[in-house]
Amino acid sequence: MQNTRIILNQRPLGTPTSECWKIETMAVPEIAEGEVLVKTKYISIDPAMRGWMNDSKSYIKPVELGDTMRALAIAEVVASKNPKYHVGEFVSTATGVQEYAISEGKDFVKVDPKIFPLPAYLGTLGMSGLTAYFGLLDTGQPKEGETVVVSGAAGAVGSVVGQIAKIKGCKVVGIAGGQDKCDYVVNQLGFDACIDYKAGNLRKNLKEVCADGVDVYFDNVGGEILDTVLTLINKKARIVICGAISQYNATKPEGPKNYLSLLVNRARMEGIVVFDNAARYGEAAKEMAGWILEGKLNANFQVEKGGIKAFPETLMKLFAGENTGKMVLEVDA
Amino acid sequence: MQNTRIILNQRPLGTPTSECWKIETMAVPEIAEGEVLVKTKYISIDPAMRGWMNDSKSYIKPVELGDTMRALAIAEVVASKNPKYHVGEFVSTATGVQEYAISEGKDFVKVDPKIFPLPAYLGTLGMSGLTAYFGLLDTGQPKEGETVVVSGAAGAVGSVVGQIAKIKGCKVVGIAGGQDKCDYVVNQLGFDACIDYKAGNLRKNLKEVCADGVDVYFDNVGGEILDTVLTLINKKARIVICGAISQYNATKPEGPKNYLSLLVNRARMEGIVVFDNAARYGEAAKEMAGWILEGKLNANFQVEKGGIKAFPETLMKLFAGENTGKMVLEVDA
Repeated sequence: MQNTRIILNQRPLGTPTSECWKIETMAVPEIAEGEVLVKTKYISIDPAMRGWMNDSKSYIKPVELGDTMRALAIAEVVASKNPKYHVGEFVSTATGVQEYAISEGKDFVKVDPKIFPLPAYLGTLGMSGLTAYFGLLDTGQPKEGETVVVSGAAGAVGSVVGQIAKIKGCKVVGIAGGQDKCDYVVNQLGFDACIDYKAGNLRKNLKEVCADGVDVYFDNVGGEILDTVLTLINKKARIVICGAISQYNATKPEGPKNYLSLLVNRARMEGIVVFDNAARYGEAAKEMAGWILEGKLNANFQVEKGGIKAFPETLMKLFAGENTGKMVLEVDA
Repeated sequence: MQNTRIILNQRPLGTPTSECWKIETMAVPEIAEGEVLVKTKYISIDPAMRGWMNDSKSYIKPVELGDTMRALAIAEVVASKNPKYHVGEFVSTATGVQEYAISEGKDFVKVDPKIFPLPAYLGTLGMSGLTAYFGLLDTGQPKEGETVVVSGAAGAVGSVVGQIAKIKGCKVVGIAGGQDKCDYVVNQLGFDACIDYKAGNLRKNLKEVCADGVDVYFDNVGGEILDTVLTLINKKARIVICGAISQYNATKPEGPKNYLSLLVNRARMEGIVVFDNAARYGEAAKEMAGWILEGKLNANFQVEKGGIKAFPETLMKLFAGENTGKMVLEVDA
């Protein structure tokens, strides 16, 4: 049995190029006592992956050169010498970008394809959804009737943020790239409005729909969009810094030049990392699963084809904004 | 009796020039029933004045063109038709930049020159000290043993922030411009260390003295110093945005390009405006007065001479960083 994997071959300067990756195929070794062999079904494609490729201090260690690229995945148990896991079961685990992985199962979370489609466990019920849940509720602290603005509104995290804010009784305005995404966000996800930042006049359009100002801004993109929203925040607003996809491939990152709006408005800008809430993942996932089953939360995802070798171009699609909902790479249907 | 006052004549673009001001002298009118005539003794010279000169939405209305420039002051009652105030009493009030003012006394707070020198009521016991008190304690939330870094450490607010942080059992590191100021901050105010940002190598020097990282950063300056400290913050750090004197005269303000350190460190950046704490001014001033009398808090100030007409150049001295402690303009000794 052969395992194909994608190795980090070179650190990118700016946008990752094909030189960053090496594809390697090798035999899958035998598993030892206590180990499990899993076959990757779906790989989670995340903006955070770009950060893991850098050799800099962050909330998690960088991927080492020569190592399998880090990735969360849904995998199927295909061999087991561990009494806790049985052939045919599905688990959520960080296999990395490879077809097979061997593990003692310590980070495994069993998932059931009969309840939700497998990609949902990487999206709304996975790290993306948990990031949205804790980032919005704990850090954003939206109150009923407040206006919540979300960038990357059609993305894996943003789409969940906006839907949870609606469940909590807020007015929800998305920002997304392109009219199709905006229509999707309003018609399929139930946001009150969504502004296409690519159409120009972002500030004017946003101001018009946020007639009472912005109380919570959940930022996934950074750059000019963050700067624009900063000019529209209310007193005591909360800005959740979840990501900055506009900056990850920038060689000269830009800071929010309107940050003094925080002073004028006694507002707060706070960064979040979902891992800090690990003890409460179960509780949050259970609540979100309930919302999905009640039809209040659309667990949207987008499946990319091409198998493990398609990983490099799939990641670039994410940075080009070519997804609505969680993007996953199908490794084995 | 003649009143000389400074009028805002033109809004500045960048650094205020002499064209921004007009000096006017006119007769002092008679006071009506219920009114008080006060003579300005000391005017508070504040970085915030630069913001009040702009015609933009802020935490307070801009000064209108043709109006007396706004200023906090200590004044002496020289005539009164209000039973609450008597000739010879001293009050803290917003007279504006003028020698005399007529008021119904609604914003007056009586101050006693026998307890503290009058300028202290504009500095440590005035808005500067209250800003330090609430900004550090409520927003910075320093805990015993944590490392607190303060920029503008020799300034009116920074000098109080550092001293309160010492009272609370923190390790306190200042950032100031020039070795003299740094010596002053360490030797006279009791900071554990102070780094001269003008000497270069700010990051290296700061990292060396903040061996355990930075838990609270109280920022009065913005710009490169804020960006440097952002690279040294600890997990869950609190950055208090009190001001950005490096940016106030900039025509192209710069944002903190390292703001994603907030994400990596799940840290918070929060703006403060002292007015929000008006209900607690008395309690805070009382506690600080106690610290001064116990010798724990040095109520430092710097008196500039030249009378009311010296206001424009005195304000520029503040922006040139030519003060240690609170800068006040003596209007009438």
